[in-house]
Amino acid sequence: MSFVIWLTGMSGAGKTTVARGLAEALRARGVAKLEVLDGDAVRENLSKGLGFSKEDRDTNVARIAFVAQLLARNEVNVIVAAISPYAEARAAARERIGASFVEVHVDCSLPELVRRDVKGLYAKALAGDLAHFTGVSDPYEAPENPEIRVSSESQSAEQSVAMILAFLEARGEL
Amino acid sequence: MSFVIWLTGMSGAGKTTVARGLAEALRARGVAKLEVLDGDAVRENLSKGLGFSKEDRDTNVARIAFVAQLLARNEVNVIVAAISPYAEARAAARERIGASFVEVHVDCSLPELVRRDVKGLYAKALAGDLAHFTGVSDPYEAPENPEIRVSSESQSAEQSVAMILAFLEARGEL
Repeated sequence: MSFVIWLTGMSGAGKTTVARGLAEALRARGVAKLEVLDGDAVRENLSKGLGFSKEDRDTNVARIAFVAQLLARNEVNVIVAAISPYAEARAAARERIGASFVEVHVDCSLPELVRRDVKGLYAKALAGDLAHFTGVSDPYEAPENPEIRVSSESQSAEQSVAMILAFLEARGEL
Repeated sequence: MSFVIWLTGMSGAGKTTVARGLAEALRARGVAKLEVLDGDAVRENLSKGLGFSKEDRDTNVARIAFVAQLLARNEVNVIVAAISPYAEARAAARERIGASFVEVHVDCSLPELVRRDVKGLYAKALAGDLAHFTGVSDPYEAPENPEIRVSSESQSAEQSVAMILAFLEARGEL
């Protein structure tokens, strides 16, 4: 079977870093059919024009789920990296994709995200200058029961990747 | 290699009928990895909220091309059925998808489309009550040099499917 590793987490939590590291590790293990659907690229290709209201975010997540499902049912493995802040939209993605769906929460505390603030967005949002910013001016509904939870605060990206690989091995996917 | 059969043509010209017949024929020949991206379903899943301006139509076509490319490069064959009225957007799809792209013009004359008018849309558009209706109140730029041209006016759907199958056979895809 194929898998869809769905990385959810706040901006700057390290989803893209984990996605890239995981893709590299999977390719090194001979996983030939693999696509990475990363939030920004997906917005450019599937969701230009959508904003950051709940409705638009949910639509964006639904589109990613639609594409991931098309790939997964043809035995192409997928890594999704998307904030996907709402539990209900993630549950709908899980429902659509079925048994291939593996939810991975890329966790990081707000104080640490504010400390890093690579793009300066947390400072802006905390100052009240950025509406609909997940975790500050918009909710992030952390997964209550994800298949895997990794932390970019207490773990290296390599350790997070290793956890996901171990999960896939245990499932007989690798 | 995989192929992307891109059916372009006006509303009611028979794209969906050809797409279904072709999918059935391909599955009967053992083509296991096959997805049909049909206009209406795609609008629902990828392009809800887009309208029928040139810009919105081009965005819709670009999204279909993005998804078709993701599938094709993983050896999943694709049949697209989409009006895709603008030559430039089809050329961009061809560019993106590369050698797998097979443009099929599903042709039918306007008088015959008006005569059929299954959904009553041509009558409405001709009466001036439907803006942006391809072929009447909006342009349809017929392909000048498609790989295949079929006609739902002078051919049966079976004959159209047979032409596409023969093309794929000649290319060594079947």
